[in-house]
Amino acid sequence: MRAAVFTQPGAIAVTDRPDPVLHNSTDAIVSVSLSCVCGSDLWYFRGESPRAPGQATGHEFVGVVEEVGADVVSLRVGDTVVAPFRWSDGSCAHCRFGYPTACTAGGIWGQPGSDGGQGQYVRVPFADATLVAVPGGTPDSALLPALLSLSDVMATGHFAAVSAGVTVGATVAVVGDGAVGLCGVLAARRLGATRIIALSSHASRSSIAVSFGATDIVQVRGAEATATLLEMTDGVGVDGVLECVGTEQSMATALSIVRPGGRLGYVGVPHGAHLPLETLFARNVTVSGGLAPARRYLPEMLRDVLNGSLDPSQVFDHEVRLEEIQSGYRAMDDRSAVKVLVTFP
Amino acid sequence: MRAAVFTQPGAIAVTDRPDPVLHNSTDAIVSVSLSCVCGSDLWYFRGESPRAPGQATGHEFVGVVEEVGADVVSLRVGDTVVAPFRWSDGSCAHCRFGYPTACTAGGIWGQPGSDGGQGQYVRVPFADATLVAVPGGTPDSALLPALLSLSDVMATGHFAAVSAGVTVGATVAVVGDGAVGLCGVLAARRLGATRIIALSSHASRSSIAVSFGATDIVQVRGAEATATLLEMTDGVGVDGVLECVGTEQSMATALSIVRPGGRLGYVGVPHGAHLPLETLFARNVTVSGGLAPARRYLPEMLRDVLNGSLDPSQVFDHEVRLEEIQSGYRAMDDRSAVKVLVTFP
Repeated sequence: MRAAVFTQPGAIAVTDRPDPVLHNSTDAIVSVSLSCVCGSDLWYFRGESPRAPGQATGHEFVGVVEEVGADVVSLRVGDTVVAPFRWSDGSCAHCRFGYPTACTAGGIWGQPGSDGGQGQYVRVPFADATLVAVPGGTPDSALLPALLSLSDVMATGHFAAVSAGVTVGATVAVVGDGAVGLCGVLAARRLGATRIIALSSHASRSSIAVSFGATDIVQVRGAEATATLLEMTDGVGVDGVLECVGTEQSMATALSIVRPGGRLGYVGVPHGAHLPLETLFARNVTVSGGLAPARRYLPEMLRDVLNGSLDPSQVFDHEVRLEEIQSGYRAMDDRSAVKVLVTFP
Repeated sequence: MRAAVFTQPGAIAVTDRPDPVLHNSTDAIVSVSLSCVCGSDLWYFRGESPRAPGQATGHEFVGVVEEVGADVVSLRVGDTVVAPFRWSDGSCAHCRFGYPTACTAGGIWGQPGSDGGQGQYVRVPFADATLVAVPGGTPDSALLPALLSLSDVMATGHFAAVSAGVTVGATVAVVGDGAVGLCGVLAARRLGATRIIALSSHASRSSIAVSFGATDIVQVRGAEATATLLEMTDGVGVDGVLECVGTEQSMATALSIVRPGGRLGYVGVPHGAHLPLETLFARNVTVSGGLAPARRYLPEMLRDVLNGSLDPSQVFDHEVRLEEIQSGYRAMDDRSAVKVLVTFP
């Protein structure tokens, strides 16, 4: 098969890799229909996190089941499936508690020994527990981008909103206008927030935020953003903040605008961010989030994509074929694209 | 009146102070029936936090209403009342959101310009919003210690349990065997936890923990405590931890024993503790707590004390008269007492 692999910082190659085969009776082989590039893929692309030369890349995909092991019971060959960004066994104590992110047998696509999402085929461990089949037969191909967003960014935006305690009528702020932040806006609207303040200084991203439900856009950053948000909320602050960046400044801004007793839902992978416990203590701020347990939310979000009430597909504003994936990474890296679709011949 | 004041580290004097008078039409004057010494009073006693010589002390009391301002509507002279450790106006945005701890007009007994709880009389601002009257006339004096515990330690232990997400059937751990930790055990039992593991290395405190509902006692600390707790929970960790100390070691222990997706409820005032965000992120640990909004929980806990289903009074294991209060501080300071009652002639 053809698949993308990491070569060195700044270079993603598309090479021939062995077609995956079933290893275990609970595996499935999936032919990838659509994949994409994630903001977190940029860490190794930029050399900010280690990755071995030749290691497969990508952790988001939708596809069609090609083959199933003898013990796979819920999937059939030909099913269209959505994969969350991690596999999990569905049966360990952590999976049963709702946190497949901590599955003792889990892993992320593209880790050594596994296939990446940016390739033609993927061997999926624990296929019953990991994959979610699209009900009702082959979906309209126009729905594939929205379904693909459930692999990671929409599930992560939703987890940010859940972690921020968003309820009907809430006033919330979203820090970060990347794909996850934009999906966070959409998730907050879906959960019933009535005022959604998006911090975004890019016109094209602000425009997606507004179409996703943002009621206000704050373009300034840092202390100016804090002052603006507090003024907008009569000095009270917002009920919940979705922190979708993970830097020291974004976390500090998030903390500065959440009201006493409010909640900070964070999904931005920490990059220098820290939590001043004294501030949290004095202001009763709850901090919740982390790596999104995407698999948990897939069925409900899949239902909403199919019934037309959820469409995050606008976050995909650029498209490349697998063979051109390097240019997709570049477009994400220079922020000329929010999120890049990867298509297969 | 006679009242305790801070003189210098290590010295609490009992002196004559002016009897308080009504300042505002929403004030009440309360004659204190019973007060106590708090673990947090030891910070200034030990010179660890600043306090002005002559400043009143104590922030926990039950008493009888002596006089009310013209705009006080819910209290009558002669009512027995419980005071939470802070006053609050009940009407600001924070109070209405359930966080009187952040009341814009709030304060803590004993702060400059206010009366302390360790004195014969207290002027209570916003009396309707601050005080909770004991219904049904003068309570049996045997109930006063239990009622007094609602001022702070029982409310704080309850907030730790709520913040740790304790639900029916949960497995929880309580870090800290001071009065708050012990009340945390009682609160966890009240909220339906079925397994309550108390970390306590003092026999007399462990014995109170057991009578409050602890199902297991872990006597070791640090890495040994972590290993023991993980072994007790099949390597999974506990659903929630009540962190009732606030030191670096206690917080590290709490974090190390909470399961992925679990909750850390912390009420120990931070003293060097910090939160490693990367660990929280990877393990989806929710951190919640801080200064307890005691006033919010007073009515429900008062009801349970009166109906006999809640009795935290065992945390008071030592009693002094107001004039002897210095010896009460010493007994708390050398940990020969868990919590010291202060009686009035």
